[in-house]
Amino acid sequence: MLDPNADVYEAVKGLRVVRNFEDRQISEEHLDAILEAGRWTGSSKNRQNWAIIVVQDPGQLERLAECGDFTTPLRNAPTTLVPVRLPEGYDWDLGRLSQNMMLAAAALGVGSCPVTFHREDDAKAVLGVADDHGARFGITLGYPEPDAERAGRERSPLSGRKPLGAMIYRDRFET
Amino acid sequence: MLDPNADVYEAVKGLRVVRNFEDRQISEEHLDAILEAGRWTGSSKNRQNWAIIVVQDPGQLERLAECGDFTTPLRNAPTTLVPVRLPEGYDWDLGRLSQNMMLAAAALGVGSCPVTFHREDDAKAVLGVADDHGARFGITLGYPEPDAERAGRERSPLSGRKPLGAMIYRDRFET
Repeated sequence: MLDPNADVYEAVKGLRVVRNFEDRQISEEHLDAILEAGRWTGSSKNRQNWAIIVVQDPGQLERLAECGDFTTPLRNAPTTLVPVRLPEGYDWDLGRLSQNMMLAAAALGVGSCPVTFHREDDAKAVLGVADDHGARFGITLGYPEPDAERAGRERSPLSGRKPLGAMIYRDRFET
Repeated sequence: MLDPNADVYEAVKGLRVVRNFEDRQISEEHLDAILEAGRWTGSSKNRQNWAIIVVQDPGQLERLAECGDFTTPLRNAPTTLVPVRLPEGYDWDLGRLSQNMMLAAAALGVGSCPVTFHREDDAKAVLGVADDHGARFGITLGYPEPDAERAGRERSPLSGRKPLGAMIYRDRFET
């Protein structure tokens, strides 16, 4: 256990997506540190039933962007990570892995945005991922474009959250 | 974007499970802060297709413990959170939610351990969760029992990780 740390709490609670990025590629040092934070993520029975594809090839990024309905951030970003669910893995573990990498990225000054591949089979074909694996989500990465980030937040309809009272139940789920 | 912060990076990379807890219940202040960090987690299209059941009733905890194969941490913990996947939600988003709550807990000095309900239908029956919802995972919470934590880490076969070279691919997945 780490000592209680208010900065950590606020960073976890405060993570927000970045949809517009500088043109330059992220450094290998930052990429390695983000992947390393992913590598150390906990998983069910520590099975780590995942792999991560680092996509930086412009042709591959363009083909991936065709596989989802809202992939503008992917087109704007120099790097996209695609966590691959290995057979017997859980998407829940991949979500944990992805959240860790996005939080680690933010702690390094790297912005991120999740994207969904609504046509997952197409994404798997682009990436050479077998039928019994999963690749439904990606994480775009890049250095934030500050003005665009602020403008995006002001415009976005996706910035609020439901109140706690709309999502918390005690001991049983009653709807 | 927050400013780069090495403490945040290390906390994200360094989260580890706690399996043994003090007998006392966690404070309402800590519980609320953990749920609040969950509430602010990002989700696909910000749909927040989730709910969270806070289980503290001893009978409910005992019944839940029967729904998984490795639930000793749940029996040891005074609180278990069960994220519920609403219809059209994704387990990937619930993994993000769960990782945020576990990291927020650690930042507050609260230990956590994920548990899997291998008999998910039984868990849903215990919790009153409908068929078209999901409730496969729980998060146990409590104040760490320091000596037991250290002993557990030394004994655990679940503490290592695969090397990056075993999980990272470039542009395509080649196995």
